[in-house]
Amino acid sequence: MKKIPTLILAAAISSALLGCQSTSGTSQTHSASHTLMAAAKSSNLGYDIVESLTVEVGPRMAGTDKDLMAVDWAMNKFKQLGYDKIYKEPVKVPIWERGSASAEVTAPYPQPLVITALGGSVATPVNGLEAEIVRFDTLAALKATNPADVKGKIVFIDHKTERAINGAGYGKSVGGRSRGAIAAAEKGAIAIVVRSIGTDHDRMAHTGMMRYKDGVNKIPAAALSAPDANQLNFMLKRNPNVTLKLNMNPENKGFATSYNVIGEVTGRTKPEEIVLIGAHLDSWDEGTGALDDGAGVGIVMAAGKHILDLPQRPDRTVRVVLYAAEEIGLVGGKAYAKAHAKELQNHYIAAESDFGAGWIYRIDVNVNPNQLQQVHADLAPMTTNRNIELGNNEAGGGPDVSMLPALGVPVASLRQEGYDYFDYHHTPNDTIDKIVPEKLAQNVAAYAQFALAMANSEAQLRPNNKQ
Amino acid sequence: MKKIPTLILAAAISSALLGCQSTSGTSQTHSASHTLMAAAKSSNLGYDIVESLTVEVGPRMAGTDKDLMAVDWAMNKFKQLGYDKIYKEPVKVPIWERGSASAEVTAPYPQPLVITALGGSVATPVNGLEAEIVRFDTLAALKATNPADVKGKIVFIDHKTERAINGAGYGKSVGGRSRGAIAAAEKGAIAIVVRSIGTDHDRMAHTGMMRYKDGVNKIPAAALSAPDANQLNFMLKRNPNVTLKLNMNPENKGFATSYNVIGEVTGRTKPEEIVLIGAHLDSWDEGTGALDDGAGVGIVMAAGKHILDLPQRPDRTVRVVLYAAEEIGLVGGKAYAKAHAKELQNHYIAAESDFGAGWIYRIDVNVNPNQLQQVHADLAPMTTNRNIELGNNEAGGGPDVSMLPALGVPVASLRQEGYDYFDYHHTPNDTIDKIVPEKLAQNVAAYAQFALAMANSEAQLRPNNKQ
Repeated sequence: MKKIPTLILAAAISSALLGCQSTSGTSQTHSASHTLMAAAKSSNLGYDIVESLTVEVGPRMAGTDKDLMAVDWAMNKFKQLGYDKIYKEPVKVPIWERGSASAEVTAPYPQPLVITALGGSVATPVNGLEAEIVRFDTLAALKATNPADVKGKIVFIDHKTERAINGAGYGKSVGGRSRGAIAAAEKGAIAIVVRSIGTDHDRMAHTGMMRYKDGVNKIPAAALSAPDANQLNFMLKRNPNVTLKLNMNPENKGFATSYNVIGEVTGRTKPEEIVLIGAHLDSWDEGTGALDDGAGVGIVMAAGKHILDLPQRPDRTVRVVLYAAEEIGLVGGKAYAKAHAKELQNHYIAAESDFGAGWIYRIDVNVNPNQLQQVHADLAPMTTNRNIELGNNEAGGGPDVSMLPALGVPVASLRQEGYDYFDYHHTPNDTIDKIVPEKLAQNVAAYAQFALAMANSEAQLRPNNKQ
Repeated sequence: MKKIPTLILAAAISSALLGCQSTSGTSQTHSASHTLMAAAKSSNLGYDIVESLTVEVGPRMAGTDKDLMAVDWAMNKFKQLGYDKIYKEPVKVPIWERGSASAEVTAPYPQPLVITALGGSVATPVNGLEAEIVRFDTLAALKATNPADVKGKIVFIDHKTERAINGAGYGKSVGGRSRGAIAAAEKGAIAIVVRSIGTDHDRMAHTGMMRYKDGVNKIPAAALSAPDANQLNFMLKRNPNVTLKLNMNPENKGFATSYNVIGEVTGRTKPEEIVLIGAHLDSWDEGTGALDDGAGVGIVMAAGKHILDLPQRPDRTVRVVLYAAEEIGLVGGKAYAKAHAKELQNHYIAAESDFGAGWIYRIDVNVNPNQLQQVHADLAPMTTNRNIELGNNEAGGGPDVSMLPALGVPVASLRQEGYDYFDYHHTPNDTIDKIVPEKLAQNVAAYAQFALAMANSEAQLRPNNKQ
C-alpha cells in the first residue's frame, strides 16, 4: 500500500472537518441558491437593465461624453436597485475617435469595399493611400514572408474565424488584427487590412483593438467585412495585381477620465472579504453594446439585486464591478488591480461576464486544487440551473480579471454558449434584438448562485491553481 | 345528364387533335428537356456568370458608369456564350445619386441611428432637419390620422414585414416605402423614415424606390434598419417626445442612356415567334446585386446557353432580355414594351427571374384557360426537376414583363422559395455568398426547360387569362 503524503492527508481531514462544521450553513445556502435561481429565472430584470443601458445611453466608447453618461447611468441604476454601497473610481483612458473610413478597389475591377478602422489605428494621408495588395492566409504567413514581397504594399490578412461553441476560433485569428500592423510595417507595408475577426457573412466589418510597437512605423489598419474579403479573393483569382485605395481619418486625442463603477452587497459576517462579479461598462461605438457588454452589465447588476432581495446578506461582500475602457486594452481592469493592490488579498474569488447572453453550460474555477471538491460541493445547486456542469480548475476569469490570478486571486469562468457571438461582436449589429431574454435570465441566476455560494463558502481557495 | 357546352367540347376535341399531331415532337422535346436538366444541374455556368458580373462589374446603378460597364459586360458575355444574335436597345434612365445619409436622435436619448436614403428622395437642407417623430403602424394608419398630429413632424412608419415563402410580406408593407412620402407630405410632415422593408434583424437599412406626386411637397425619405426602428420604439415607450435629426444629400441629376441587352437563340422553324426569358441588369448601389438580380442574369443567360448546346435549335426563338433600370421604376421593361409594340403579337410567352436564387417549386402561367392542360403537358418534364409543381393560371410574369399581359402577351412565373430573400434585398448584404450554387443550377435547369417547352409547344396560348 502506498503511503499517503502527509499534506494531502491533512488537507483531506481539514476538508472533512470543514464539511462537518459547515453542513448546516451549506444546507441553508443551497436552499437560498434555489430560491435565487427561481427568482432570477422568472424575472426580466437583467434584460430590463440591458434595455435601459442600450436605449437610454446607447454606444459608450471610452473617453467620450457617452461614456460619462454610462457612468452616471450605472451609479443611478445601482441606487435604484438598492445596493448597500455605491461608488466610482477614476480611470485614465485614452481617447480614440473613429472618424470615417472608406476603401475602394481601383484596379482591375473598381468598386467600393466595406471597411472599418481598427481601434487605435492612425489615419491615412488626407487624400488616402493607394497600393497593390498582398494577401496572406495568416499572421504567421506574413511573418514568414520575404520583406521584398510586402514593401510598399497593403497587406491583406485573410484568416477565417472558425465557429465554435466557446468562441475558440477568435483566439486563433485575432492576432492578425491585434498584431498584424506591427508585422506588416516591419516588412515595409504601408497599410494593412484584415478579414474581419467574425463568423458571420454580413457586409459589416468587425472593429477591435490593434497595437503598435515603439520603433516600428505606425501604419493604418482596417478590417474588411467577410463578403469584401471574399471579393478580393475573387479578384486575385482573376488577376494577381489588385490595387486598393484607403481613406481613414481616426484620431488619437489624448486622455480623459472615466470610472470603474462599483455596487456592493455588504457581507454580514466577513464584510471585508470580497466576491467580485464584473462586466465592462464601455462599448464600441458602432453598435449599442448590447452583447458586448450590456449583457454582462445586466447579468451582474441583476445577480447582485437578487442577492439583496434574500432575507439575509451572505457572509462575504458581493462586489459588482463595472469596468471602464475594457475594449481599448483592459484599462479599467488594470486600474482596478492597481488601485486595490493592498485589498487583493481579501478578494476571495472574481469572475467577469463578457461573452454575450448565451446559455451558461459549465463553470470552471482557478482555486487551490485541494479545495476543488469542496468548491464543487458549494456550487452544486448550479447543476440544477439548466444542468450547468462543474468543470475544470483552469479558469481565466474574464478579460478584466485576467491579471488577478497572477496576483494570487482565485477566479471562476462561467462558460457560455457562443456559437453566434462572433457574428455580431464589434459590429453595428451588436444590438439588443440579439439577446434572448430567457438565456439572459439563466445567466443572471447562475451569477447569483455563484456569488452566493462563494460569499458563504468555507473553502480555503488560496493558493490558486495557476498564476 | 347535363349538356356539355359547345365551346368546351370544341376545345377538348381541338386539344386532343393537337395532342395527336404533336406526339412525336412532344416526345422529342421531353427527351431534350431531360438532357437540358441534367446538363444544367451538373454545370456551374449560372453561378460563374453571377460571379463574373458581381466581381468584375460589382454594383451597377442605372445611369452610372458602372451601369454602362455592365452593358458592355453583358454584350461580351453573350458573345462568349455563342448566342446567335446579340444587340442592345437604348433606354433613357433617370440618374439619382445616393450621397451620404445620417440620422441621430437628439432627445431624449441622443445617439446615432442607421439609415439609408430611399431611391429618388430629395435631400434635406444642407445642415439637416430636426423635428419630433410621430409613429404609425402602417401607411393606412398615417392616411387615417388628423393632419394636426403630423404637421411639422417627421413621420415614422413602423410596418413590420412578415417572413413568407413567396415573399408575400413585402407586398403588404412596401406601400409605406413607395407612397409614404406623399401621404406624409399631404398631412404636413417635413420628412419620413420607414422601418426597412425587410425580414432580417441586421443593422442595415433597406433602400428601394419611392415616389412623389405632382402638387404635393417633396419631403426627404429614408429607411431605418430594423434594430433602429426597434430603438425608436424603446424610446417612445419611455417618452412620447423623441426628436430626430436627418441629414441626407441625394441628388437627382437628369437623365442618361442605358440599354436593354438582348441575346437570342434563333428559332429553327418559327424564328419570328419569341419566347422571352428575362432578368434585370441594373442593381442598387450598396450591395453587389448578386441576388437582385445577378442571380436572374446568371439563370437566364445560362439557360439560353444550355439550349444553344442542344443538337438542334427549338422551333421558336428564345430571347434572353437583360433589362435596364428595373430598380428605379421598371424603366427598361416599359421601354421594351414600347419599342417592341408591333412585335408583341409574336411574343408567344414571357417570364422574368427576379427573386434571388431559391429553389423553384412551382410554375404558374397566364394563358388561354382552354390550353392550360396542353401547356401543363408541355411543361411536364419540369416536374422531375425537384418536383416543380404545375400551378395555376394567375401568373404575373415578373416586374419587367408585368405590363405585357395587358398587351395580350401570355406570361409565366417560376415561383421560388424566398424565405430569406428579404433579409438581404436592397442592402449592402446582397452579395454572392448568399447564393447556394446548387439552388441556382436548379433554377437554370427550370428556365431552360420552360423556354424549350414553350419554344416547341403547339398550344394556342392567346387570348391569355388575365389582362
